[in-house]
Amino acid sequence: MSPRGDRDRGTGDARKRARAAGSGARGGVGGDARRGGKPSAAPGEIVVVGSVALDSVRTPFGESGEALGGSASYFSLSACHFAPVRMVAVVGEDFPLAHRETFKSRGVDLEGLEAAPGRTFRWRGEYDVELGHAHTLETQLNVFSDFHPRLDDRHRACPFVFLANIDPELQLEVLGQMRRPRLTVSDTMNYWIARKPDRVLEVLRRVDVALLNEEEAKSLAGETQLVRAADRLLDQGASAVIVKKGEHGALYRSREERFITPAYPVETLTDPTGAGDSFAGGFIGWLARSGRDDGHALRQALACGTAMASLAIEDFSPQRLLETDREEIARRVGLLHHMVSFELEPVF
Amino acid sequence: MSPRGDRDRGTGDARKRARAAGSGARGGVGGDARRGGKPSAAPGEIVVVGSVALDSVRTPFGESGEALGGSASYFSLSACHFAPVRMVAVVGEDFPLAHRETFKSRGVDLEGLEAAPGRTFRWRGEYDVELGHAHTLETQLNVFSDFHPRLDDRHRACPFVFLANIDPELQLEVLGQMRRPRLTVSDTMNYWIARKPDRVLEVLRRVDVALLNEEEAKSLAGETQLVRAADRLLDQGASAVIVKKGEHGALYRSREERFITPAYPVETLTDPTGAGDSFAGGFIGWLARSGRDDGHALRQALACGTAMASLAIEDFSPQRLLETDREEIARRVGLLHHMVSFELEPVF
Repeated sequence: MSPRGDRDRGTGDARKRARAAGSGARGGVGGDARRGGKPSAAPGEIVVVGSVALDSVRTPFGESGEALGGSASYFSLSACHFAPVRMVAVVGEDFPLAHRETFKSRGVDLEGLEAAPGRTFRWRGEYDVELGHAHTLETQLNVFSDFHPRLDDRHRACPFVFLANIDPELQLEVLGQMRRPRLTVSDTMNYWIARKPDRVLEVLRRVDVALLNEEEAKSLAGETQLVRAADRLLDQGASAVIVKKGEHGALYRSREERFITPAYPVETLTDPTGAGDSFAGGFIGWLARSGRDDGHALRQALACGTAMASLAIEDFSPQRLLETDREEIARRVGLLHHMVSFELEPVF
Repeated sequence: MSPRGDRDRGTGDARKRARAAGSGARGGVGGDARRGGKPSAAPGEIVVVGSVALDSVRTPFGESGEALGGSASYFSLSACHFAPVRMVAVVGEDFPLAHRETFKSRGVDLEGLEAAPGRTFRWRGEYDVELGHAHTLETQLNVFSDFHPRLDDRHRACPFVFLANIDPELQLEVLGQMRRPRLTVSDTMNYWIARKPDRVLEVLRRVDVALLNEEEAKSLAGETQLVRAADRLLDQGASAVIVKKGEHGALYRSREERFITPAYPVETLTDPTGAGDSFAGGFIGWLARSGRDDGHALRQALACGTAMASLAIEDFSPQRLLETDREEIARRVGLLHHMVSFELEPVF
């Protein structure tokens, strides 16, 4: 069963129902009844399919060597603060046991972390002083080049799905195997947009929310202005997109809604690697935790994503995601709320 | 009397008093009593000192030839929607009468608009497809090169002051002539930061709020990261800064407060010229209109500035500022509120 067939349980139509019920653009499905309290059920399980890597990163503020990296790593160590995570990825025989223990100590399920003959995926990159763009110095795909996600029944039953940046063909394969996902979110990168734009668009059409960075959105949409690019992606069939603008925050756009969240103002930006996946972890994590998909929940989820991204970039590898706790995360979400929210008064 | 001596009526200390009174970081001076209603008095008068120019601009979306431009023009035609504006600037003998009529039709006082022998200041520039930076093709200062602001008693008595981008020596001269300003705001540009950094910093120390764009803030502070740059400017003596990030919004930073506002998502970005001055017009305009300086008012003022900037960039010259009305401005402020504000819920 494809997630498409299950769309009426997803984000887009939930809001349509809310509107039909006359609860207004910000109203949600049972939002008021559940808002402010504990979630009514245990947090929903999340499955992530992506990469686990050993990263060597140099920035003007220091460097890391063969440290834990990869999209599935950042995502898991971010999302696990909110809800249980099952990881589907591949590593080589050389993958340090300590990293496995790190995941396990955070409750991340590794049943889907395949150990294949060969070496683990390695990435080496550096950032200039503006920290805007990573310059890839070396990519060794190693065991990741033959990665083929293997999902068991428990993976397929997960209600929340994050398709991190992998070949869109594989993303579609995973989507096709999911049973009744409540929320499916994809990520991608310019590499796939350049090589398989049609497949990337097909993924966009089939997930509930597609994450892209600003360049990717403009490139895929063929537009030079961000707002038009987001609109165009909806025209091309996406239900909702989140355009990540790095240090400038993120934009959520669906047919019904437009939310903007600025980045959390970090004082000690050290290494931007993994910011997007950490964002996705907080975003999906809070939705899985709250079990909600109304407008209020989406906004709070964006704030949670923003908080997790702000933590990730304060140190190399996912170190800060490991060190942080619920109190610090909640404090950042609260400060973000304080910095952006205002009480609307009559302008004239 | 310098504005410094009057600082206890300004933004910074008002908040300190509010804090001392235990009303919390978001509390304001009498804010709750006055909030939501009509302003208790007539809007305060604003004096702006800056340039009036004839601009020729080319963007990928079209071009303008010798159209009305200049910082004082954009500011006045933005702020006049909120409060009375008195302009202090200079034009040449060739300045079209029609432009004078345009200002007058909007109630902008032109007693301080000097007509000097010679030609009006002219600027010719172009933007690339990203619309991020203006490339100056030609600057003819003409009568503006000998500009010396002449303030009469009515100018000196204005409670709200905008020192648009002019020589910081002149900005200081104007500041020294003001009687009892309630709010003083400055702008600047890289040209002055490179040539007279000490004077620019002196202006920053003496005004209530200093406006800079991102590059200027980093350059003046000697920092590569925006958040640190804003912090450093406070260390250097600024009471509050607003860092304009163009299409990415703006950041307000004082010792007590940090607000962030993203840009309003414009679909038809045509010409970014004047965005910063239009922002300043909405920001100061709403504070002058409401007569308030509490945290709530500052946030709403940032939203008003953002709305005015979004209008200015939708067409060449200040055309959209002339075409818009209170209903459209209020709608944009309301939509911005809707896009950024969220109700904070327990994260865990």
